[in-house]
Amino acid sequence: MTDFKATKASFYIPEGMTYLNGNSLGPMPKASEAAISNFLNDEWKTELIKGWNTKNWFMQTNTLGDRIARLIGAKNGTTVVGDTLSIKVFQAVAAGLAMQPNRKVILSDNGNFPSDLYMAEGLINLKADGYSLKTPNPEDVINQIDDSVAVVMITEVDYRTGRKHDMDAIINRAHKHGAAVVWDLAHSAGAIPVNLDKSNVDFAVGCTYKYINGGPGAPAFIYVAPRLHSTVEIALSGWYGHAAPFAFDIGYRPAENIERMRIGTQSIAAFSLLSAALDIWDQVDLGDLRARSIELSELFINEVAKRCPELTLASPLNPAERGSHVSFQFEHGYPCMQALIASNVIGDFRAPDIMRFGITPLFIDHSDILNAVIAMEDIIKNKIWQEEKYQTRALVT
Amino acid sequence: MTDFKATKASFYIPEGMTYLNGNSLGPMPKASEAAISNFLNDEWKTELIKGWNTKNWFMQTNTLGDRIARLIGAKNGTTVVGDTLSIKVFQAVAAGLAMQPNRKVILSDNGNFPSDLYMAEGLINLKADGYSLKTPNPEDVINQIDDSVAVVMITEVDYRTGRKHDMDAIINRAHKHGAAVVWDLAHSAGAIPVNLDKSNVDFAVGCTYKYINGGPGAPAFIYVAPRLHSTVEIALSGWYGHAAPFAFDIGYRPAENIERMRIGTQSIAAFSLLSAALDIWDQVDLGDLRARSIELSELFINEVAKRCPELTLASPLNPAERGSHVSFQFEHGYPCMQALIASNVIGDFRAPDIMRFGITPLFIDHSDILNAVIAMEDIIKNKIWQEEKYQTRALVT
Repeated sequence: MTDFKATKASFYIPEGMTYLNGNSLGPMPKASEAAISNFLNDEWKTELIKGWNTKNWFMQTNTLGDRIARLIGAKNGTTVVGDTLSIKVFQAVAAGLAMQPNRKVILSDNGNFPSDLYMAEGLINLKADGYSLKTPNPEDVINQIDDSVAVVMITEVDYRTGRKHDMDAIINRAHKHGAAVVWDLAHSAGAIPVNLDKSNVDFAVGCTYKYINGGPGAPAFIYVAPRLHSTVEIALSGWYGHAAPFAFDIGYRPAENIERMRIGTQSIAAFSLLSAALDIWDQVDLGDLRARSIELSELFINEVAKRCPELTLASPLNPAERGSHVSFQFEHGYPCMQALIASNVIGDFRAPDIMRFGITPLFIDHSDILNAVIAMEDIIKNKIWQEEKYQTRALVT
Repeated sequence: MTDFKATKASFYIPEGMTYLNGNSLGPMPKASEAAISNFLNDEWKTELIKGWNTKNWFMQTNTLGDRIARLIGAKNGTTVVGDTLSIKVFQAVAAGLAMQPNRKVILSDNGNFPSDLYMAEGLINLKADGYSLKTPNPEDVINQIDDSVAVVMITEVDYRTGRKHDMDAIINRAHKHGAAVVWDLAHSAGAIPVNLDKSNVDFAVGCTYKYINGGPGAPAFIYVAPRLHSTVEIALSGWYGHAAPFAFDIGYRPAENIERMRIGTQSIAAFSLLSAALDIWDQVDLGDLRARSIELSELFINEVAKRCPELTLASPLNPAERGSHVSFQFEHGYPCMQALIASNVIGDFRAPDIMRFGITPLFIDHSDILNAVIAMEDIIKNKIWQEEKYQTRALVT
């Protein structure tokens, strides 16, 4: 059994704060300081350039990738860490398009995280040869998969509502029609069990600053099915992905394994923070995590239904159809969320009217859930959200 | 006058080490620990998600970019930090190609850093419409600029020999022929004075882990000439580059300024280390830097000529034609460099026979230069490089 008291004790949460935003930015692991101090004092300071060899900097893309692989049901050697999620989406979709050069359609949905859609748009503009991006409603994706589709690009868990796609059904239908699938795990990795190898998906991508707690702007990751490792075409062909990066050949020759998805030189400081976060994950069973996420989410939903009837559940009622965040619609959601944050209950707001709460069992327990609902009840019952100071929009909402 | 004793004292250099590899990875600024500790303890730990607003995380791409702009002769608002140099090269070349959609040639040279060439190759494969990459010898680039060329992609200082291109001549001829110029400053920024605004170049890119001392894998930067800010096409169109990133619009609409070159969410830990390095640069006059770089390089070249006649200067003899590193050819260069490193004089080796030394005035002085040459003289005179242990190749050379 995973000891969630122990995992909670592994993070700094400011005194008095109820942090329901770990789906956006995870809190800081207590081991972060030691990890970065080790990198600074025992690696960069003393080894300097030699650290690329002596401290394994060059291969941390892979060693960290293997540790993430366990969280997403993937074998060692299938996943590398680096860059940003947007870059990894671009890489994966470009590789998928190259698998079906006569097809011109990228199929996604209008609930996908906008940056994924933007990256696909940019790729389409570059290719400039009749490519298009289709964005039906999420529930219509599966029926739009046909023989015209080159790539199906899906974020499993909707960033607003928490609604979960049926990835097995999408992958099966896509493969039946000869389309590749890019699975964005931004709100899945560390949130729900994922079984990439079993799913037979082609590509998966994700980030590590949300549920995985690697820190603001922590590196992304990419998974490629082993059957594609030696053939997948490389659009962002940087020296880190070369078969012989230190030969400094003038021509690009991709590595014969997952390393071909590496691009350029990565921040080792950022890697050290990610490593400290993964030390906590090493102690977590994903079945336990899912059970506790559902238990806490159900408690939250039931208490809100009782205490805050003004809110409408925006997430699916059936836990099997949800990821690990819960959202409510409320006409006055923006000022209400500002008032909640002022009372030290941290969630976030997504336009036009969604109040969003991350249910992250590594550091959230039953009392946190009750605190949050009681604070919300007070704000709504007493119309505290009407106060002038809660109406102004901040840069980052 | 820049106080180079003070700048030297701002870095950790291990006792007894002569570090002539700051052109590959700069040493650690002493202020790094305080900077990262501040980020961890006063930002991530306490602010959590609010840090994006309260600690300006979201705009550090720009505030750091402005500080780099001073080092490369650019105005505020022209440069943003983020991603890796390979990604920034891709962005800039893609943008340059879009300026001349009927032209199909990217002109570079066979002395360019291979990753730049690889990224151009990947871009060409994506566009798949008759595009090509030409790589003549460096000295032939200027004569190959004609009306067929869409983009001239040049790394100013050759990573092996230190040979410096005449960028003004290249830019002038390129513009006369309607070609855009992408100027890679990897071995220029913090090495030699650069005047981007004055040069009228279109795009410039660079990294911050070499001369700028931001740490292994520190973020890259990109400059775009102000005249292009509102029109440049965006190939890697991530949410950070959107005109309204927090509106979560389904369609991409680029920011009307340099921010459109931002892509995805960046590591704030990496930014904090870069900021500490730039604090040192804030005290440096680039004219002083160049004068001292030449003085130290001349001393090095003259002493090597006297003490190690077995070596052949691979860099230009005329300082005006060099960047800030000096290279020698030596048939036994690889084991000789291994022996030098074993004696705690750190340079590096580039195949087939180049021994390379970074002359970085921020932390290298006259006695370092003499130490290095005396050690090399000993290794060559006494054939120490012949020892068995110096023959094995490491992963990262």
